[in-house]
Amino acid sequence: MKSKFRHVALIGKYQTVASGASGASSRRVLEDIAHFLGAQGCEVVFEHDTAHNMGISGYPVLDVDAIGAKCDLGLVVGGDGTMLGIGRQLAKFGVPLIGINQGRLGFITDIPLDGYASALAPMLRGEFEEDHRSLMHARVMRDGRCVYDALAMNDVVVNRAATSGMVELRVEVDGHFVANQRADGLIIATPTGSTAYSLSAGGPLLHPSIPGWVLVPIAPHTLSNRPIVLANITEIAIEIISGRDASASFDTQSLASLLRGDRIVVTRSEHNVRFLHPRGWSYFDTLRQKLHWNEGVA
Amino acid sequence: MKSKFRHVALIGKYQTVASGASGASSRRVLEDIAHFLGAQGCEVVFEHDTAHNMGISGYPVLDVDAIGAKCDLGLVVGGDGTMLGIGRQLAKFGVPLIGINQGRLGFITDIPLDGYASALAPMLRGEFEEDHRSLMHARVMRDGRCVYDALAMNDVVVNRAATSGMVELRVEVDGHFVANQRADGLIIATPTGSTAYSLSAGGPLLHPSIPGWVLVPIAPHTLSNRPIVLANITEIAIEIISGRDASASFDTQSLASLLRGDRIVVTRSEHNVRFLHPRGWSYFDTLRQKLHWNEGVA
Amino acid sequence: MKSKFRHVALIGKYQTVASGASGASSRRVLEDIAHFLGAQGCEVVFEHDTAHNMGISGYPVLDVDAIGAKCDLGLVVGGDGTMLGIGRQLAKFGVPLIGINQGRLGFITDIPLDGYASALAPMLRGEFEEDHRSLMHARVMRDGRCVYDALAMNDVVVNRAATSGMVELRVEVDGHFVANQRADGLIIATPTGSTAYSLSAGGPLLHPSIPGWVLVPIAPHTLSNRPIVLANITEIAIEIISGRDASASFDTQSLASLLRGDRIVVTRSEHNVRFLHPRGWSYFDTLRQKLHWNEGVA
Amino acid sequence: MKSKFRHVALIGKYQTVASGASGASSRRVLEDIAHFLGAQGCEVVFEHDTAHNMGISGYPVLDVDAIGAKCDLGLVVGGDGTMLGIGRQLAKFGVPLIGINQGRLGFITDIPLDGYASALAPMLRGEFEEDHRSLMHARVMRDGRCVYDALAMNDVVVNRAATSGMVELRVEVDGHFVANQRADGLIIATPTGSTAYSLSAGGPLLHPSIPGWVLVPIAPHTLSNRPIVLANITEIAIEIISGRDASASFDTQSLASLLRGDRIVVTRSEHNVRFLHPRGWSYFDTLRQKLHWNEGVA
Repeated sequence: MKSKFRHVALIGKYQTVASGASGASSRRVLEDIAHFLGAQGCEVVFEHDTAHNMGISGYPVLDVDAIGAKCDLGLVVGGDGTMLGIGRQLAKFGVPLIGINQGRLGFITDIPLDGYASALAPMLRGEFEEDHRSLMHARVMRDGRCVYDALAMNDVVVNRAATSGMVELRVEVDGHFVANQRADGLIIATPTGSTAYSLSAGGPLLHPSIPGWVLVPIAPHTLSNRPIVLANITEIAIEIISGRDASASFDTQSLASLLRGDRIVVTRSEHNVRFLHPRGWSYFDTLRQKLHWNEGVA
Repeated sequence: MKSKFRHVALIGKYQTVASGASGASSRRVLEDIAHFLGAQGCEVVFEHDTAHNMGISGYPVLDVDAIGAKCDLGLVVGGDGTMLGIGRQLAKFGVPLIGINQGRLGFITDIPLDGYASALAPMLRGEFEEDHRSLMHARVMRDGRCVYDALAMNDVVVNRAATSGMVELRVEVDGHFVANQRADGLIIATPTGSTAYSLSAGGPLLHPSIPGWVLVPIAPHTLSNRPIVLANITEIAIEIISGRDASASFDTQSLASLLRGDRIVVTRSEHNVRFLHPRGWSYFDTLRQKLHWNEGVA
Repeated sequence: MKSKFRHVALIGKYQTVASGASGASSRRVLEDIAHFLGAQGCEVVFEHDTAHNMGISGYPVLDVDAIGAKCDLGLVVGGDGTMLGIGRQLAKFGVPLIGINQGRLGFITDIPLDGYASALAPMLRGEFEEDHRSLMHARVMRDGRCVYDALAMNDVVVNRAATSGMVELRVEVDGHFVANQRADGLIIATPTGSTAYSLSAGGPLLHPSIPGWVLVPIAPHTLSNRPIVLANITEIAIEIISGRDASASFDTQSLASLLRGDRIVVTRSEHNVRFLHPRGWSYFDTLRQKLHWNEGVA
Repeated sequence: MKSKFRHVALIGKYQTVASGASGASSRRVLEDIAHFLGAQGCEVVFEHDTAHNMGISGYPVLDVDAIGAKCDLGLVVGGDGTMLGIGRQLAKFGVPLIGINQGRLGFITDIPLDGYASALAPMLRGEFEEDHRSLMHARVMRDGRCVYDALAMNDVVVNRAATSGMVELRVEVDGHFVANQRADGLIIATPTGSTAYSLSAGGPLLHPSIPGWVLVPIAPHTLSNRPIVLANITEIAIEIISGRDASASFDTQSLASLLRGDRIVVTRSEHNVRFLHPRGWSYFDTLRQKLHWNEGVA
């Protein structure tokens, strides 16, 4: 039977150069999957850095933007970090992604490498669950000009410097004053990011269908400062009121040396990331397994 | 200038019989407000129990359903509890509510009795902020039959009995298994209820515009059980797996002696409650003041 | 080689009547251990209810007080609950206890049934770690008279009734006013109890060597009410200020229908419970394993 | 009546140079207090930097070590930070301290400047409460050598760098492995420090009489990592396992650029700091006031 996805891009850990026995093994894995996809009627291309780092030849190679323009599906072989990175880049193209995980399954890379074929075959025939994730668009404004611009799938974090005291942050929502926060920092997390750093800092879980972000203060000076869930159609602005050498992080990218008066402005990106999961997939099953909800103190 | 609201109902603490000096004072307050409303061109009616308990005469009297059918506005003089109670009853009629508070301002009763006239006059002319709150519809199912039915503006809570150990609850969302929770209990709170009991139990704040509920476990046995925000278009079911004499509460009403196998099923009510606030009102101002966010450890 | 413990009492799940195949198996386990102890030079007695419930004969039988008076060691075969129950009763006699666990190892029953002999043999020769646990002595005072008296190894808990609102509690330490707490309840936990209910309610862990108790409010109305660790040489009093049908629990025993003005007074018992562990035992190893500290969100 | 304290040192905000109207006012305050002390029969000296910064003359001047050697009492006019700083330096001399606060009262500076005379007079006559606080002695070990040495009255904190991910820390207590923590950082707080940063990070309050420290993970990756209270006679070691550019802080002093393998070793200092409070002072009164325990969500 033929795949409903004609042009499929294979993407590995594109930021890592593979070498030695492990590299050879990773290459074989990708070639094996490529061969399987071909047998299902797909035309396979490799993401440029993946092919280069893994030493793969014999397939067409495209960079991420070209994949966005030409492919119907991206197949990511890696962990959640790889999946999020490529998702952020492909969001504007609307290309859906499937994640295959070589190690422990992730929150979003939920197809085990062992036996991937039996999971992928029905998905290629169109039997899958589709899961849309919202993205944040963040800008850093200084003296009225945008000095930094980024997308984030997990979170935007404003941090004090490690060796100075608290940072003081003014939070506004659609121009309304919310609070002055004195804390180690402040996290704005998407539903996707609500299972990551935000959770460690005491934030709630947000189901992916919630059209909201959660603001989570990190070690707030005022004990009644609690996480708050805000609609993602609002504009959230965080202004640096005081605090030497504060910094901001957008997923994995960081911007150091924020100045007093800098504003980090977060809105919803107009794009979503599309993840595909095997038929019968449940967000709650993943949550239960990843958070060890089966186990008590025992 | 004439009020845009023609038929206005005055509602006091309808569940309390007033007597003595304090009762006389409360009566004068209500009569004073009624007189003010009349002067603005409103036709004033009194809620039946309010008139009866306060000993007010000389005005038409309607019960709550008749108010719903005939009035354009309800003016509540009392605290948040009174406002929530009347809001729950008027939800299906779509009558908007304004809250005047005699004591400390509440989350939703935000017009101080002192100087109410200057706050109300522009609101009657149509200058106000409108704030819609979602409601939960909860049913208790036993052997396939509904044995209890209630609306809740704040929360639905399932509790262990005071002198027995934990309760074990099975949570399902739209038929998907979420988790078996062993805990003192479980709260499902609306955004309105997120500033009440849910907050004490460690839940996040939900902005009223969030179309979601938050599930908050109370003293959960599994330490990684965290609050989770779910879309309010889903159906949440909580089944009693074990636990002697568990009970459920729906805002202020309680149902004791739940049996093993009972299911509490929560969906969103098709109705919203409409609260009106003075022009310039901000949810965040209220939050900041009620939660003492201005003050640190000091 | 001869055991340093001459008179050893064997104690099973003395509150459960065993029957059927599982009962026969439990009996064989106890008889097997008794035989092993005999071979090590111990004179073995059985706790009365254990012998009766299990249908064990052929050994001397003593009740718990007689065990306290005559034995050098108690060997408990069961879970943490059994161990705590017998520890509470034997505390005043100073008889040390060893715990063998048939299922998942507990916090204090740390010798697996499989291979118990290799763990016990050196312990009987005197090679063990000794671990002393403090106990609370709790009294309920009404109109100046003591109406209830109990020891607790884990915790004393004051609770609201399931279907009423918050309880209000006045806390005093050595006669000094600490706070009025409005909450679902209040836990006073020993270091031993700090891994039990107190932990679920957000309390810290206390190392067994800490001469203190921790007071943990359950879902406190005031968000800045935090757990507080107090010296165990103080007298802590909790007075019921308001709240219909509050109750108190002392480990597993409950006292319902507390009245306004009742005071729960907690002091340190003059006795300690002595637990023996295999040489090399570490409290931290147990903690790490029971609380799954090896595992992240994964 | 004569003061029981003969030689009294006056200490202001010794780290701040005063100038202008505010400086003149601060100088007058100190001279006023000095005059009062003289009238009570005390011989007054000024701390060197205080005298220098404030432009005070006409009194003997001593540096902190000389104050330690020669004075019977230190009177600190400033906030908690000033009091902690001078307490740390005077600990080894056993000189008691009284704190007068010009602004909002602190946790330990509890005599208001207005009306200080009526509070101080009985204290000088010997009517006071004495409050001993333990101190931590912290060393940073690198390749077996001590590269940093500090005392801390509040806390020792190990932190990740602001723009890198988590730090991984290995915690040992008296050589026993406790846990590998992946987190933003780890706080070890004294009872005094338990009302400071530790509290913001979710730690419990420790009464000053508790002979323990509390370890509080900051945003731990493993959700079951909870604060743990350890006896202060133990040696706690924290080893940097991974994490670029981690740093450590000892009260207000910081040490940046920790290396993998560095160990921060904390033991109890042999000295205590002695704070004197007015007769009738209660730790709990201070706590209740500073943490706003009188106020609910209101």
